[in-house]
Amino acid sequence: MKRSNLNIGIIGIGNIGLQVLKQLTLNSQLNKLFSVESVLVRDKQKYTKIISEDNEFKNEIDNVLEKITDNEDDFFSNNNIDILIELIGGIDPAYRYVKRALESKKHVVTANKDLIATHIEELLQLSKDNSVKLRFEGSVGAGIPIIEVLSDMLKQNQIKKITGIINGTSNYILSSMFENSSDFEDVLKEAQDLGFAESDPTNDVEGFDAKFKINILGSIAFGTRIPLETVYVKGISGVSNKDMNYAKEFGYNIKLLAITEKSSEGIYSNISPALVSLSQPISKVGGNYNAVEILGDLVGNLWIQGEGAGKNSTSSAVLGDLMGIYYRSSDDVNLSGNKENYLSKEEVMIRNYIRLSVEDKYGVLSEISGIFSKNEISIASVIQKDIDNDQDVVDLVIMTHDSKGVNFDIAIDSVSKISSVKEKPVVIRIND
Amino acid sequence: MKRSNLNIGIIGIGNIGLQVLKQLTLNSQLNKLFSVESVLVRDKQKYTKIISEDNEFKNEIDNVLEKITDNEDDFFSNNNIDILIELIGGIDPAYRYVKRALESKKHVVTANKDLIATHIEELLQLSKDNSVKLRFEGSVGAGIPIIEVLSDMLKQNQIKKITGIINGTSNYILSSMFENSSDFEDVLKEAQDLGFAESDPTNDVEGFDAKFKINILGSIAFGTRIPLETVYVKGISGVSNKDMNYAKEFGYNIKLLAITEKSSEGIYSNISPALVSLSQPISKVGGNYNAVEILGDLVGNLWIQGEGAGKNSTSSAVLGDLMGIYYRSSDDVNLSGNKENYLSKEEVMIRNYIRLSVEDKYGVLSEISGIFSKNEISIASVIQKDIDNDQDVVDLVIMTHDSKGVNFDIAIDSVSKISSVKEKPVVIRIND
Repeated sequence: MKRSNLNIGIIGIGNIGLQVLKQLTLNSQLNKLFSVESVLVRDKQKYTKIISEDNEFKNEIDNVLEKITDNEDDFFSNNNIDILIELIGGIDPAYRYVKRALESKKHVVTANKDLIATHIEELLQLSKDNSVKLRFEGSVGAGIPIIEVLSDMLKQNQIKKITGIINGTSNYILSSMFENSSDFEDVLKEAQDLGFAESDPTNDVEGFDAKFKINILGSIAFGTRIPLETVYVKGISGVSNKDMNYAKEFGYNIKLLAITEKSSEGIYSNISPALVSLSQPISKVGGNYNAVEILGDLVGNLWIQGEGAGKNSTSSAVLGDLMGIYYRSSDDVNLSGNKENYLSKEEVMIRNYIRLSVEDKYGVLSEISGIFSKNEISIASVIQKDIDNDQDVVDLVIMTHDSKGVNFDIAIDSVSKISSVKEKPVVIRIND
Repeated sequence: MKRSNLNIGIIGIGNIGLQVLKQLTLNSQLNKLFSVESVLVRDKQKYTKIISEDNEFKNEIDNVLEKITDNEDDFFSNNNIDILIELIGGIDPAYRYVKRALESKKHVVTANKDLIATHIEELLQLSKDNSVKLRFEGSVGAGIPIIEVLSDMLKQNQIKKITGIINGTSNYILSSMFENSSDFEDVLKEAQDLGFAESDPTNDVEGFDAKFKINILGSIAFGTRIPLETVYVKGISGVSNKDMNYAKEFGYNIKLLAITEKSSEGIYSNISPALVSLSQPISKVGGNYNAVEILGDLVGNLWIQGEGAGKNSTSSAVLGDLMGIYYRSSDDVNLSGNKENYLSKEEVMIRNYIRLSVEDKYGVLSEISGIFSKNEISIASVIQKDIDNDQDVVDLVIMTHDSKGVNFDIAIDSVSKISSVKEKPVVIRIND
C-alpha cells in the first residue's frame, strides 16, 4: 500500500513508546508519512507530566498532549487510526487490544514477543481476514532486521537452520563469566544492579525469553506454526565458573544458543547453553549484542548482528515496520497449515561435554567408558583434572562424538549411579 | 506491484546466469511467479551444448532450449518481457542493454557493480522516468542483502558510517598472510592457482573493485551520488609479511577496509589496508566472507556477514531482486541532487602505523619525534625491533594518535629524508 499519510494510534509510552512518539512527532522525514492521532495510556496525569517535562517535545507540547487519552473506548472507536502500535508488552491486555485493532481493520505493529509467540497463527489469520498487516520486527533482536531478512530470504531460499544468541541478559552474564572467571550468582547480581537483568531474572536466565523468540523465527523460516511445547529449553543457571574455565582451556566459550533446524526427519528447536569453539564467530558475540545466523540453500551462511535491546534500537524496528506497511504490497509472513514432525531432544544427535567428580581410583574410567560404549556413544576426549581438595576426588571432563539423545540420557543416568561418581554429572551440549 | 506472473529475459548465462536459469525453470516456488521468456547469448551453439549436457535441465530441456537466442533485436523487441536480468558484467555492452531495457519500460535486475557504480544516477533516473524498477543487490556482497537492509534502515535512521570487507580476493590473501605468515606474492600465486584470484588481479588487490562497491553503498546511505574520483584508494599489494607479523604481535590484524562516513564537514570514502584490533569482530572475518557494518543513529551498529561471491550466493541476490520487484510497491534507492562536501585524505583525522628502517644510533628517534611534534602529530607508541642483519639497522614501529592527513603527509615526507632512515617508510592506517 502507499498513501499520502497514515494515522497512528499508540498504546503504551514507556521507554520505547516515548522514543517512537518522539520520532514520529519530531523527525521531519517520518512526519511526511505518518501522523500520531491518539495515544492510549493507563494514567493520563502521569504521562502528561512526563511529556510536559521532556524538553525534546518543547515546540510540540500542546500538539502532543492533546493526543493523550486514557479512555479505551474513545481510542478504539477513533476511525481515523490506520495503524495501531502496541508497546505495553505481556499478553493481557495486549492480546485483546491487538485483536480489537485487527478486527476493526487497523494495521498493527508490535514488539511484543510473548504475544506473537503465543498467538502468531491466530493473529496472522485475523490480519489476513481483515486485509490489514501485522508486523513485529521488534519482537526478536530489537532493531536487527532479522524478521525482514529472514522472510525475504526464504522467498528464494530453503532455510535449513537458524542459530541465534537472542537473549541479552544471558549473553551479558555468560560473557562476563568468560572474561572475568566469575560465578553465575555474582554476575547475575551485578547485572541486576546495573539494570541489565530484572529482579526476577527467570524469564531470561532460564531460557523462556529465547524460547519465544526462536519460536517466532522458526515458525517464519519453516512456514508453519511451531508448537511452543516442542521447543526444548534449558537455561544458564546451571553453568558454573568451573565449566566455563574448562571450556576456555579447551578452546571454547559457553553461549546460550537458540537453534531451530529442519531435516528430513522433522523440526528440532532448542534453547540451551552450548560449548562454542573460539574459532567460530558466534563465540565472540559480546555482552550487549544479539546475533542470528541463517543457513539457506542458496545464500549459504548469513550472519546478522546488532544491538538486541534498548529504546533506540527497538524504536528503529517499530518505525521500520511502519515503513514496511507503507511501502510493501504484501504481508511477509505466511504460515501454511502443513503438518510437520517435531523432534524431541531424545531423537536427535548431539555432542556433549560432561564433567564428573570421581574418586581417583583404578577402574573408574574403564567402567564409565564401558557404559558409554554399551550405549553407542563414542568418546572424543577424556581429560582428568586434579582438584585441590582433601578427598581423593578428581574432575573427569569427557567430550563425546555425536550420539542420539535417548542413548545419552540412559548412559548418563547409569554413570551417575556409579558409586565412585560423587556428584550429579554436569552436561553441556557442544555446538559444531 | 503484484501480478500473477512476470516474464523474464536473461542476458548472459555464465556461472551465475545458468544457476538463475535453473532456479527459475526448476524451482516450483519461483515458477509460480516468473516465467523465462527469452535468453540472449553471444554464441547460441555453445550454450545449447552446455544446457543440453546439463543433467539438471533434463525434463525441461526442449522448453529451455527454445528460449535461447543470439539475436539482440529479436530479444529487445519481445514485448512479453517484463524484467531484464543482466548478468554479462563489465560496462559495455551491459550499459547499452540496460538502458535499452529501461527505455522500453522493462524492469532491470543486475549484479554488475562496474555498471552501477559508474552510471547509478543516470540509470536510476531512467528507471523512474519509465516507471520501472532497477535493482542490483548482487552488485555488492553477492547474496548478503546489504542494499536492501541499508535502504530499509535509512528510512528510519540517519546513517553515519559504513565499514566493510567487500573484496573477497583481498580478504582471502590477507587472511592467509595472517594465518600462515606468508608473503603477499606467494599467497597471491596460490590464490590464482585455486581460482580465488584472477590472472590479472589488479582490480581486486589494488582496491578498484572495493571502490565501486563502497561507492554504491555510500551513495545509497547518504542519498547522493558520490563521485567515484572522491574515493581514496590504496590496495594491499604493499602489505608485507613483516608488517602483518608486527600487527599480530601488537594485537591487530590487517584487513582491506572500505569505509564511507558522513560528518558535519562532509563525506569521506576510502579503501585502504588497515590495522584492526583483534578484539573487533571485523578482524575475524574469514577468507571467503564479506561483512558490512552499518552505524545508524537509532539502530546503532548493525553487522551483516555472509558469502560474498559464488554462483549460489549471487543467484540468491538476483532472485531476491525479482521478489522485490514482485512484492515491493516502490523503488528502494533514492538519490537526491543535494550538494555535498567531499573530503580528501588530507582533510581527515587518521591514526597511523609507521614502520621505519633506521640506523641504530643515538639521536635518530629524537629527530623523528621532533618532526612529528612540529607537525602536531602525537605518538602513541614506539617500539624498536632488532632485525637480523649485518648492517646496524633496526625497525622502528610507531603508532600515532589521530592526526590530520595533510600534517601527517608533510611529516612522513620529512622523516623519509632523514639520512638515517634507510628505506621508504611503510604507512598503514589504524582503524579504531
